[in-house]
Amino acid sequence: MGLVLLRYGELALKGKNRSEFVRRLRRNIRACLKAHNLDGQVTSVGQRIYVQTDQPDQALEPLSRVFGLTSLSPVVQVPREIDAIIKECVRQAKEAGVKPGTSFRVRSRRVDKTFPYISPEIDRLAGEAILQELGGKVDLSSEADVTIGVEVTREGALVFSRVIPALGGLPIGTEGRVVALISGGIDSPVAAWMMMKRGCNVIPLHFSSNEVETSKALDNIQVLSRYSYGWELRPIVLNHHEIISPVIEELRAIGQARWACIFCKRTLLQKASEIAEEFGAHALVMGDALGQVASQTLANMEVISYGIPKPILRPLIGLDKTEIIAIAQKIGTFDISIRDEAGCPFLPPNPITRASVAQLKEILKQLGYVEPLS
Amino acid sequence: MGLVLLRYGELALKGKNRSEFVRRLRRNIRACLKAHNLDGQVTSVGQRIYVQTDQPDQALEPLSRVFGLTSLSPVVQVPREIDAIIKECVRQAKEAGVKPGTSFRVRSRRVDKTFPYISPEIDRLAGEAILQELGGKVDLSSEADVTIGVEVTREGALVFSRVIPALGGLPIGTEGRVVALISGGIDSPVAAWMMMKRGCNVIPLHFSSNEVETSKALDNIQVLSRYSYGWELRPIVLNHHEIISPVIEELRAIGQARWACIFCKRTLLQKASEIAEEFGAHALVMGDALGQVASQTLANMEVISYGIPKPILRPLIGLDKTEIIAIAQKIGTFDISIRDEAGCPFLPPNPITRASVAQLKEILKQLGYVEPLS
Repeated sequence: MGLVLLRYGELALKGKNRSEFVRRLRRNIRACLKAHNLDGQVTSVGQRIYVQTDQPDQALEPLSRVFGLTSLSPVVQVPREIDAIIKECVRQAKEAGVKPGTSFRVRSRRVDKTFPYISPEIDRLAGEAILQELGGKVDLSSEADVTIGVEVTREGALVFSRVIPALGGLPIGTEGRVVALISGGIDSPVAAWMMMKRGCNVIPLHFSSNEVETSKALDNIQVLSRYSYGWELRPIVLNHHEIISPVIEELRAIGQARWACIFCKRTLLQKASEIAEEFGAHALVMGDALGQVASQTLANMEVISYGIPKPILRPLIGLDKTEIIAIAQKIGTFDISIRDEAGCPFLPPNPITRASVAQLKEILKQLGYVEPLS
Repeated sequence: MGLVLLRYGELALKGKNRSEFVRRLRRNIRACLKAHNLDGQVTSVGQRIYVQTDQPDQALEPLSRVFGLTSLSPVVQVPREIDAIIKECVRQAKEAGVKPGTSFRVRSRRVDKTFPYISPEIDRLAGEAILQELGGKVDLSSEADVTIGVEVTREGALVFSRVIPALGGLPIGTEGRVVALISGGIDSPVAAWMMMKRGCNVIPLHFSSNEVETSKALDNIQVLSRYSYGWELRPIVLNHHEIISPVIEELRAIGQARWACIFCKRTLLQKASEIAEEFGAHALVMGDALGQVASQTLANMEVISYGIPKPILRPLIGLDKTEIIAIAQKIGTFDISIRDEAGCPFLPPNPITRASVAQLKEILKQLGYVEPLS
């Protein structure tokens, strides 16, 4: 039987939000264990969560993908007695390879302040024992080769030598639903991932125009599922051509084919808003960035967004392409996104790059639509 | 006279955008030098920009804050002859402290392919000379203590030992204007900075409700100015109470004081949209995040955004508070933002946390407004 200690961020947790945060986090941790066929008991004590499981080593990697956690450590629990603590520190130091030439430190924390030794004393006593038995040299900085951690709780003392970083964020389910438009490209899966990280239940929406791009989008949604414990990502796939063709034909009829991309995106966002309304989602998520292609201008963004009922979240709008690619590589969507590419059959030879709302209104009038905003 | 070599990212630069990017970048570099009373000649050759200046050491730090640049190096130019290159490599290696025990490498690049020595030969010859004169050991990895760089151009050879990282992004002025709402808090200056980084001309807008918050906002705009070479940040300051009081009174009159925050934000965004229209800006920028306070919900975001004519860019929406704070510290706004805080006098005791558009429409009707969207 092994024990894993899970840490979560507290900075953003004010008042009432906190209990909901921890409740969701526990639930998502259970979902993670279940998804990987791992048994495990999840409990929370104070500002820590514990997972007791037969397979702690198998659990570490999946658990590191549960949003809301900041780090995890496999721990050994010993009685809350100074001798037992020292002995376990020495054992783990040895296991972690401390020998003459290795730098190490012991860092302890009393969660239970009634324990008779204060933290610096525990650090010193355990440190001396390690020095005596294994050699090495003490280095109190974060540069030390090995750090042995101790947490003294009411039930016992926990000793660990590994801290595995997790992803931070908020537990999925604490912030509600969003509809994320997922294409076959690099950006949109990253945008969806970032909103999942901020606690959103993502409803993935893909407008399918060909098999190449659709298979990339669906594969990426599969990858995103690995981060969505506690909320199943069920892709909604709609036929792009069916939705877009009539609009393009109308535009061609009035000689405004240059507006194809603008109207395409507007139509997809309108459709996405309807789906959001149907599924109780409060916002749309897009992978919009600035300056990647000629038509990705603020002017076009204004015209595309104009009158769309749901707010559009663009978590990548402040990032460089290099930063977006780095996230895509980290989360595992990049290689899928750069597979073969299929172009859009509706792309006009000279798409408009600096649209204006006044022009949009004019065209909408020509097409017989009522203006979306007064 | 000293020479500084400036590098910029190319990833996002496709076709036509590139010449505009470089032109703006050069202009902003000149503005940076001028702002710091540094003389300097700015030229670009191939994929590099050069600054020739009397005070290269003073120029490095300001230049590292010009968006669009990825790194800079003070360089020494020598004739494009192998002996001169080797001699300068040895001199700089000595200056950089190479001695027995130091690891080093030489990395050269032929911009001009007619130079008779290929890069690996230059690396080897210069490396051997350094070994012979100074000792040390060759380490071809990025772990080397000292890296000497060589670029052979048509005009001469450039040798350098320092690479100072810059901020990346796009040159300010390439993406157009946005109105950024700046409060006295941590988030909004970071949001504005991120859009500056993505090439936007930011028009800072502050709604002043008290001196404490207004002085923080204006001080932070001063800090942001250090990144806005080529575009002057001219804050627009409007009286918050004058704009908001009538709305709050109307809400109180119909017993809907709980909606104060929602209507306050809607009113400010309407006002900001008008200002954006007046100044030719295509979008608004807000520091919105999720889950920081009870009222920061997706439901409220939907209702606040509903019918606002300009798109709202929220570059922090996918970030954790720890990530936002790290940026605020890096750019220098954090310490200002956490000075004394002044609360809002209009804050209702129990602000609404899950507003709906249907309720909004109902209240707008009661207040006698025409619906903003059909």
